[in-house]
Amino acid sequence: MTALPRYEDVEAAAGRIEGHAHRTPVMTSRLVDELLGARVFFKCENLQRMGAFKFRGAFNALSMLPPDRRRAGVVAYSSGNHAQAVALSARLLGIPATIVMPHDAPAAKVAATRGYGGRVVVYDRYTEDRELIGRELAEKEGLTLVPPYDHPDVIAGQGTAARELFRETGELDALFVPLGGGGLLSGTALSTRALSPSCRLYGVEPEAGDDGLRSLREGRVVHIDTPQTIADGAQTQHLGALNFAVLRQEAPEVVTASDAELVACMRIFATYLKLVVEPTGCLGLAALRARADEWRGRRVGVLISGGNIDLDRYARLLAEG
Amino acid sequence: MTALPRYEDVEAAAGRIEGHAHRTPVMTSRLVDELLGARVFFKCENLQRMGAFKFRGAFNALSMLPPDRRRAGVVAYSSGNHAQAVALSARLLGIPATIVMPHDAPAAKVAATRGYGGRVVVYDRYTEDRELIGRELAEKEGLTLVPPYDHPDVIAGQGTAARELFRETGELDALFVPLGGGGLLSGTALSTRALSPSCRLYGVEPEAGDDGLRSLREGRVVHIDTPQTIADGAQTQHLGALNFAVLRQEAPEVVTASDAELVACMRIFATYLKLVVEPTGCLGLAALRARADEWRGRRVGVLISGGNIDLDRYARLLAEG
Repeated sequence: MTALPRYEDVEAAAGRIEGHAHRTPVMTSRLVDELLGARVFFKCENLQRMGAFKFRGAFNALSMLPPDRRRAGVVAYSSGNHAQAVALSARLLGIPATIVMPHDAPAAKVAATRGYGGRVVVYDRYTEDRELIGRELAEKEGLTLVPPYDHPDVIAGQGTAARELFRETGELDALFVPLGGGGLLSGTALSTRALSPSCRLYGVEPEAGDDGLRSLREGRVVHIDTPQTIADGAQTQHLGALNFAVLRQEAPEVVTASDAELVACMRIFATYLKLVVEPTGCLGLAALRARADEWRGRRVGVLISGGNIDLDRYARLLAEG
Repeated sequence: MTALPRYEDVEAAAGRIEGHAHRTPVMTSRLVDELLGARVFFKCENLQRMGAFKFRGAFNALSMLPPDRRRAGVVAYSSGNHAQAVALSARLLGIPATIVMPHDAPAAKVAATRGYGGRVVVYDRYTEDRELIGRELAEKEGLTLVPPYDHPDVIAGQGTAARELFRETGELDALFVPLGGGGLLSGTALSTRALSPSCRLYGVEPEAGDDGLRSLREGRVVHIDTPQTIADGAQTQHLGALNFAVLRQEAPEVVTASDAELVACMRIFATYLKLVVEPTGCLGLAALRARADEWRGRRVGVLISGGNIDLDRYARLLAEG
């Protein structure tokens, strides 16, 4: 069993990503504060390189590889932000990267991944198993597989976002964070315990996929079918093993938000903060809105995980809301 | 004739707005740089308080009023960002504000102005003259009229945005700025001459309303009919007298951009910078795109003037682009 990552690992990761990752801004809005009755600090990882916090974990993990593994290259399977995070990190570090993507992935995403210099291997998502393809490539070509969340170096890297937040705002009363596989939430939990120990930490899942909530309640990793939700960054079927272990220990509160609530928050972000936020990135604000009474008059953090969304889909969702 | 504002007035304005206006971020995007072949610095006034640079000029002008005029109150006529800038500045300074708005102004804008504590007086834009109403109110109630651009204190305030930009980036090779009545461009010209004298300054108008271009060419303030353009912040019929005088002296280059180019830039801002930018705020980037060849390999500034746009309209424009 891998040892659980600790806050010291987050500190070390912060040193590694410095000068490579953006130190993203913490934004506030007087009108949002009035709307919610609290003082709200938004950590804007939609303004991170490649548009999501995922760059932090990927860059940290890749920069810890020994020289021989760097030379051989890395492989990742993802149709989303992790793919681009690995491709960009690899390019910056001079490491060859292979990304396994579904054959029907949006052309823009494939182009972006290739734009970062990544080799794209496509698979049929209805007949082939991407994990198997990834593992086979790793074995055959001697590549190192970079998992999207279930890895101590990835968790440590993701924890650097909350570390920056607390260092800028000081201690907070509550912090709301999106929850998918658990990489961001487990890293955030480490930083929260170290830098703002009395802060109440919330992990927020899409309503359609509450496996995280059930996992912590039942004391085991619950597997579910791919949830039907617009929050595509949190369409995970289960928590990572290591993420679950960290979360059991840190015991954040897990809550859910509906797709309609996410769309309402996309509109709030565009109107008051002039920010494009992808549906998954709205999970934190949606959960805070649902419990605004509880946090009235308090200082609350909301982590915006990312801003990558196809523009036509974005326009459609805004118009529906 | 009022004396022309000078850079020293911009410096003084910077001191007055400090701690009240946001020092807005300067953003960059590796992908936009690749797209344009230049190193581009975006000064994000869409992230300014009330969502536009207009707050700078209004706050500066209001904070220079002597105590008796503050007590009596101010009046402004505007259906756009200037109304909200005056209302918010007045509220922060404890000055009563009256805003003259068309009776068919969007409900959200009227509500926002009232939300800032402003008294709203409506008029019929087809049968009544807002300037006359404003002047009558000023006379009858002893209010001070705050013009949207044709005033030295407003010009000095608007110049603080470019001052912040140059202080952060150092000198630039070119700077692209939206042009309507000329408040932002004339203030920017003062800061540019002082802080980056060899920088080429561009004022960018909507193609449908090129009165600024013609005015500088003909050496007199040219009046036009209200231009049909999506850039509602630049639908002015003529430059201000004082703005024209400053611009004649500083001689920026004036160019135009079409509505279709503005929509393309709204999409670029949303995709690469995750920013909501109103059509007027896209003028600078649109003009740079049209002359990217000329600025290849150079360091170029683009001033984003604001981000206030009705969300349904925003979604519609994005979808059309």
